[in-house]
Amino acid sequence: MIRVALDAMGGDRAPRVVVEGAAWASREFDCQIILVGKERNIKKLLNKTDYNKQRISIRNATEVIGMDEPAAKTVRSKKQSSISVGIEMLKEKEVDAFVSAGNTGAVVCAAALKLRTLPGIERPGIGILMPTLKGPCLIIDVGANIDTTPEQLFQYGIMGTSYVKHILGVSKPTVGLLNIGQEESKGTVLLKTARKIFEKSNLNFVGNVEAKDFYLGKIDVVVCEGFVGNILLKVTESFAEASSKLLKIELTKSLLPKIGAILSLSAFRAIRKKIDYSEHGGAPLLGVDGRVIIAHGSSNAKAIKNAVRASIEYIKHKLNKHFIEELRKENVY
Amino acid sequence: MIRVALDAMGGDRAPRVVVEGAAWASREFDCQIILVGKERNIKKLLNKTDYNKQRISIRNATEVIGMDEPAAKTVRSKKQSSISVGIEMLKEKEVDAFVSAGNTGAVVCAAALKLRTLPGIERPGIGILMPTLKGPCLIIDVGANIDTTPEQLFQYGIMGTSYVKHILGVSKPTVGLLNIGQEESKGTVLLKTARKIFEKSNLNFVGNVEAKDFYLGKIDVVVCEGFVGNILLKVTESFAEASSKLLKIELTKSLLPKIGAILSLSAFRAIRKKIDYSEHGGAPLLGVDGRVIIAHGSSNAKAIKNAVRASIEYIKHKLNKHFIEELRKENVY
Repeated sequence: MIRVALDAMGGDRAPRVVVEGAAWASREFDCQIILVGKERNIKKLLNKTDYNKQRISIRNATEVIGMDEPAAKTVRSKKQSSISVGIEMLKEKEVDAFVSAGNTGAVVCAAALKLRTLPGIERPGIGILMPTLKGPCLIIDVGANIDTTPEQLFQYGIMGTSYVKHILGVSKPTVGLLNIGQEESKGTVLLKTARKIFEKSNLNFVGNVEAKDFYLGKIDVVVCEGFVGNILLKVTESFAEASSKLLKIELTKSLLPKIGAILSLSAFRAIRKKIDYSEHGGAPLLGVDGRVIIAHGSSNAKAIKNAVRASIEYIKHKLNKHFIEELRKENVY
Repeated sequence: MIRVALDAMGGDRAPRVVVEGAAWASREFDCQIILVGKERNIKKLLNKTDYNKQRISIRNATEVIGMDEPAAKTVRSKKQSSISVGIEMLKEKEVDAFVSAGNTGAVVCAAALKLRTLPGIERPGIGILMPTLKGPCLIIDVGANIDTTPEQLFQYGIMGTSYVKHILGVSKPTVGLLNIGQEESKGTVLLKTARKIFEKSNLNFVGNVEAKDFYLGKIDVVVCEGFVGNILLKVTESFAEASSKLLKIELTKSLLPKIGAILSLSAFRAIRKKIDYSEHGGAPLLGVDGRVIIAHGSSNAKAIKNAVRASIEYIKHKLNKHFIEELRKENVY
């Protein structure tokens, strides 16, 4: 049976929301979930939920890494944190995957330190499936790696392509580099150098992708530095939140729009579902020797449940085995 | 009387839309507009509009720089292009400002080459007023400068602050660095170094600003590298376009949402007006010794008209004089 360690202490509303998500997952998925964190707290919360007792257990971890603590330092000092213990369990093969909605930097750091990377991979990258007009697009990296090299961008391209191929069943995914123009001459030295590496490869490389085309969904895999990817992701969230607040204000200003809004509710719900991260579950940390899923810090129970589902898919599709094969094919190691 | 040179050949729908925008501006603003471009074409289009004959004239320019042509190369080879001629007119003080919706790279390049920069400014930056929940926020740079230094970011901070102070009347504008986290330790070496310069200055520096807070509008001036700023701007456009398409599809799927949409129309219009770039006019190229306003490539006539208005405001507020004073105060030169 698949075994998943779940960081009970990670996330803005942890441990409550995580425990609720675990209970939900235990009712839906045939897997063993090990909640990692402060045992007594978790037990108390778990007893308030309707969970499958055969499928949930607890591993005590006495320390907690806060959402805003400096990653590298805290991972080294808090050896009994839920993140450190969970990654350790993964390293010792007590579990098949680790899921956390906690401090992203700390998860990346602990994973890179303890699990090491796959052959040919210098730095892990966070890949996230974003909704677009033409279906999901994988963007990698969205924040694991700040000082990226052209070779690392290429490694992201290989893993991203393989991920989309196996998880979404796209036979020959297109891959592009996020840039500020389509022409070869555009962008930073990093991108110009990376472009040359991609062009020589066997990937289905389509050149530069402009941000203005991102949500129109012309490309399957978009590769970028972690800093830029993170800005793209977060500014989208910011804009979506601001627009929805603005819409609410405008719609409730007078009676007709209010009635209109009620009648349009199903349409709004359909869109929200499409762009709701909690439907998509967590984002995999690609490139570490182990399966690590990072969920959004503001995850609700449903997002946690879906992050557990994402980890099960990761395991079932044997993604790391495929990555190693494709990295080999592209002569990366 | 204020004299504005307007690039008639620049923009996705030039020269028609530009000429219409010029005609509109001539009816509203007390200024002299000189349309720069292919005289015969412009004349023909102008005669179809209702314009103030006292306020519009034409300056012939026989060449056109295409929207996707490589900037530096084309500026050097096409000396009779509308962009080159317009910038030349500005240099020779035949006009007080130059407005273009054409090839942004070419405008920046021609301006930097011919007009030179203000004392203490190494590279010009494009500043753009973005709508947020709490009113406009100036983001600088959104794409003029790709290989940015910490010192250049600081120069943007000074000009951005001065711009917001004088154009929006904010007495002590807050300024922050766009980053992927609020903590000091976050981000690239560029940002960490820039942070130290900002901290020592007299600006109202608030530290790092996260992209997730951008549209909530907590800050008056957000400083970033041109690459990142351009991604932020363009991905917002992309998301807004995709969402509005999605909304249209969902709203027309069945009758009730359709009726709802019609009733909510006024609310949608109010929001569109708030986030519509054409309402805000062009973005100033800050830091060159001259007033250059860059309008969006997909500008409609209203956006052109408002870009002309932006150039008039730029002139009336004597911004470059203020920039020089504030750069002096901060010991930049």
